[in-house]
Amino acid sequence: MSDWLDEVPWNEQGLVAVVTQDASSSRVLTVAWMNREALQQTAEKKEAVYYSRSKKRLWHKGEESGHIQKVREIRIDCDADAVLLKVEQVGGIACHTGHESCFFRKLENGKWVEMDPVLKDPKLIYKKGKGT
Amino acid sequence: MSDWLDEVPWNEQGLVAVVTQDASSSRVLTVAWMNREALQQTAEKKEAVYYSRSKKRLWHKGEESGHIQKVREIRIDCDADAVLLKVEQVGGIACHTGHESCFFRKLENGKWVEMDPVLKDPKLIYKKGKGT
Repeated sequence: MSDWLDEVPWNEQGLVAVVTQDASSSRVLTVAWMNREALQQTAEKKEAVYYSRSKKRLWHKGEESGHIQKVREIRIDCDADAVLLKVEQVGGIACHTGHESCFFRKLENGKWVEMDPVLKDPKLIYKKGKGT
Repeated sequence: MSDWLDEVPWNEQGLVAVVTQDASSSRVLTVAWMNREALQQTAEKKEAVYYSRSKKRLWHKGEESGHIQKVREIRIDCDADAVLLKVEQVGGIACHTGHESCFFRKLENGKWVEMDPVLKDPKLIYKKGKGT
């Protein structure tokens, strides 16, 4: 039943790179990682579950912030070493900084320049410290 | 002049993950990797230059196929461990399989199912063997 998980060539850490895109706006929201269990749970729950490399545990996106990602589609690339999620981003905010997307800085004249607004103060998103 | 390159926390292999998105259709085309030199060349040439982990060398996307990616925008994520390129995909084909995007397979009922058409036979794209 989980042959599809066997087709992923998990890297030496047992992970695969995951790009998450907003299904409506098509904006690329985040790049994160999943292990086998995270990808299985994501498919079952239809909500994004990543593997946090810093916390070294499964991380149900939105568990602290409420900014859950409802999964509309799961795709895999030609050599199966990257996964693409198309999601509905609850709250319209994917980044722990309060931006819609984690990719809010653009290279301009040799500098990374912040382009997009903070939609909500992170202090109001998280009760305690950083989290996503 | 290249301080912006110093802000990327290159991983233990000296690489950073790169998501490439079509600037017009917003379709996610590929996930690949860059080292410092690749990112610098990408910014200078305004064409995508990746680092091929299999060939262990810089890889000017389209060098064999002609399917060059003209770079319109370079973004970086909140913790700077992923880069987003917005590109104009020459030939409308990013994948070595002849598909527009490398993400042509979708999870459906526990199977990865090919969704998108092959736009051009890879044998007609490459004179000799696989290349991108």
